[in-house]
Amino acid sequence: MAKAAPVSPLAPKSIPEIPPIEGVRFAAGEAGVRYKGRTDVMLALLDEGSRVAGVFTKSKCSSAPVDWCRARVGSGKARAVLVNSGNANAFTGKAGKDAVKLSAKLAAAAAGVPERQVFLASTGVIGEPLDASKFEPVLPKLVAKAEPEGWLEAARAIMTTDTYPKLSTRTAKIDGIETRIAGFAKGAGMIAPDMATMLAFVFTDAAIGSEALQTLLSRSVRGSFNAITVDSDTSTSDTLLLFATGAAARRGAPEIERASDRRLAEFRAALDEVLLDLAHQVVKDGEGARKFVEIIVDGAENDRAAKRIALSIANSPLVKTAIAGEDANWGRVVMAVGKAGEQADRDRLSIWFGDVRVAYKGLRDPSYDEAAVSEIMKRPEIKLRVDLALGAGSSTVWTCDLTKEYVAINGDYRS
Amino acid sequence: MAKAAPVSPLAPKSIPEIPPIEGVRFAAGEAGVRYKGRTDVMLALLDEGSRVAGVFTKSKCSSAPVDWCRARVGSGKARAVLVNSGNANAFTGKAGKDAVKLSAKLAAAAAGVPERQVFLASTGVIGEPLDASKFEPVLPKLVAKAEPEGWLEAARAIMTTDTYPKLSTRTAKIDGIETRIAGFAKGAGMIAPDMATMLAFVFTDAAIGSEALQTLLSRSVRGSFNAITVDSDTSTSDTLLLFATGAAARRGAPEIERASDRRLAEFRAALDEVLLDLAHQVVKDGEGARKFVEIIVDGAENDRAAKRIALSIANSPLVKTAIAGEDANWGRVVMAVGKAGEQADRDRLSIWFGDVRVAYKGLRDPSYDEAAVSEIMKRPEIKLRVDLALGAGSSTVWTCDLTKEYVAINGDYRS
Repeated sequence: MAKAAPVSPLAPKSIPEIPPIEGVRFAAGEAGVRYKGRTDVMLALLDEGSRVAGVFTKSKCSSAPVDWCRARVGSGKARAVLVNSGNANAFTGKAGKDAVKLSAKLAAAAAGVPERQVFLASTGVIGEPLDASKFEPVLPKLVAKAEPEGWLEAARAIMTTDTYPKLSTRTAKIDGIETRIAGFAKGAGMIAPDMATMLAFVFTDAAIGSEALQTLLSRSVRGSFNAITVDSDTSTSDTLLLFATGAAARRGAPEIERASDRRLAEFRAALDEVLLDLAHQVVKDGEGARKFVEIIVDGAENDRAAKRIALSIANSPLVKTAIAGEDANWGRVVMAVGKAGEQADRDRLSIWFGDVRVAYKGLRDPSYDEAAVSEIMKRPEIKLRVDLALGAGSSTVWTCDLTKEYVAINGDYRS
Repeated sequence: MAKAAPVSPLAPKSIPEIPPIEGVRFAAGEAGVRYKGRTDVMLALLDEGSRVAGVFTKSKCSSAPVDWCRARVGSGKARAVLVNSGNANAFTGKAGKDAVKLSAKLAAAAAGVPERQVFLASTGVIGEPLDASKFEPVLPKLVAKAEPEGWLEAARAIMTTDTYPKLSTRTAKIDGIETRIAGFAKGAGMIAPDMATMLAFVFTDAAIGSEALQTLLSRSVRGSFNAITVDSDTSTSDTLLLFATGAAARRGAPEIERASDRRLAEFRAALDEVLLDLAHQVVKDGEGARKFVEIIVDGAENDRAAKRIALSIANSPLVKTAIAGEDANWGRVVMAVGKAGEQADRDRLSIWFGDVRVAYKGLRDPSYDEAAVSEIMKRPEIKLRVDLALGAGSSTVWTCDLTKEYVAINGDYRS
């Protein structure tokens, strides 16, 4: 469990420095949930008046903390976030609900905030009861030491088999006033042995009402966290929370209640960038990943069809193993287009690896240069584009290759 | 390509002896499509009056021979089947259509039958033109030497990376007269490097009209060929053809025109058995397969929901790698149930590996014996059962594990 794996070869060259965001403080500690000698609990404290929006796993077997957050996010108000690693508190029945209630109660008491404004997430082993009483001695210490600079420690405390902490930040002007967005994420979905969860927490000092915040978040995940896949397996715990402290209002930023407010244009773009950066970092830490793959589908009947086709390619074990083998196997891409169930015409289909067109109008491109495409396939980041030549629908998704290391990590650990 | 791999450890202990079926003869030969020193073309000749039914890939990019068969199967009449290995004639555009036309023309001329009653299938590399003129010198020889005993040679000629030929037979009485069903199949879907195709050809001497035959076949595949998965990848070429020569009528068997005819009860059961046997053999030859897994889902809202959940489990890379690692990882089964998108209640779910219940009503079963389940996971054939406790829907599907050998076979062959 959580044995030290070498850092993914696709990891960013350096970890970004995250400046403070007014109105939020972080602390990390050791609750001893499962791991020894590392932090496994993270507390974020938010100033009064902070707003929250969230998106969660679509799994019908969602974890107890997901159920807790989903029931409370509608209120739009948040004062604290408590996250532990080592135990996902998923598939734990009534004991799981009790653990969630106790966690919220303890965090609320330590921080002096209402229980219903405490948000929770857990990541780690499924099916084992979480002993929330372990948080009791740790929480007062976390409250005492929470500080605006605690980003990296927070990001590290929520890691399971992640090989590097994932952080991102951007600035955006709203009506001429600078605001900041920053966040961190962990773990590529159901990727780690026994580990469940993609978690991401993003914070801004912008003053945005919770309904607008929810709309911004729901839109922004479409092209980021909902456009990545490592192995098509959806965790029971996926949680993405976006918090707005509103502190920028004291510096003159407007209070914005509508997502369509034109003053949000720059903010929206910055939010998209932060979420996309974090989502890419999650894929680049997919277990056994050696290649980061961007899949672009153009010319589909509509955008929805384009996305289904792109995900069909991204999730195909045969496409993923071909990329691991540095093989520009466009026959398998055709197969994956065909099985997606969307409109496709073999005789119009064109396929590119990088900028080399390997198939054109249903046939091997007669002019394609095998040496050029071999060069492209050796790169750590590969672009695969499909043009269906049927309509204006398009979509981009990101995935990684399927390697023997993936199977070893997920299958061999008992042998 | 087609390098000799060791025979799958899940292969049947012996290859069944198939007795002749009156009205059909087989021959195999070497056309040199791609392979050297092995047969790569199979011709089956059917007596006049033979009927045919077929089911085909749902891929939107189906191969040229699939398009040919689909356009002709409605007539219900068949006199010959020509199948080659080494080239799938898929994604070959107009050249593919021309190759199909030429193949049918050559086979029809050699056999002295109408072109429209020649059925075709191809398996092998995708995207390369098939040179059908290679069949010209071979076909007259095949017609001359076709014999009722040629089953095994026919089954071998259509293999690509299959590690053993797949044959099956049963008898069934119709109105007191014995009839026979026998067939052969190849290759687990999009499993082999660059190879596309699951092909199966089944023959009977029963006298059954083509509409009834189609109904029987469409029903029977639901629980057999449409209930198996190796890696969720659907080939562009999947073809299953069922031929009825009607020769049993000369021995007094009735001519049957309705699938619901009660005299077909025994025949229907025998057909189900032949298709299921062949389908299982295909899974047991899945690339890198070391475990054959039966997945039973009970208690779903309805049968359709049960099947979607069963396939979600069967196609989950995390479930498949856990089985490869001999790990009874029920947390991953919960995950796969949750992501299927069908109704499921975590707190009602129970899961068994073999006869050991590992999870009960949403929690680890307190009485479960780790040693007993470890024993079960070491077996080559494993039963995994899920009870949703919601309704009466149930479904069974079959799959294999996901091993490093799968990745090696499909990814490493260029390196």
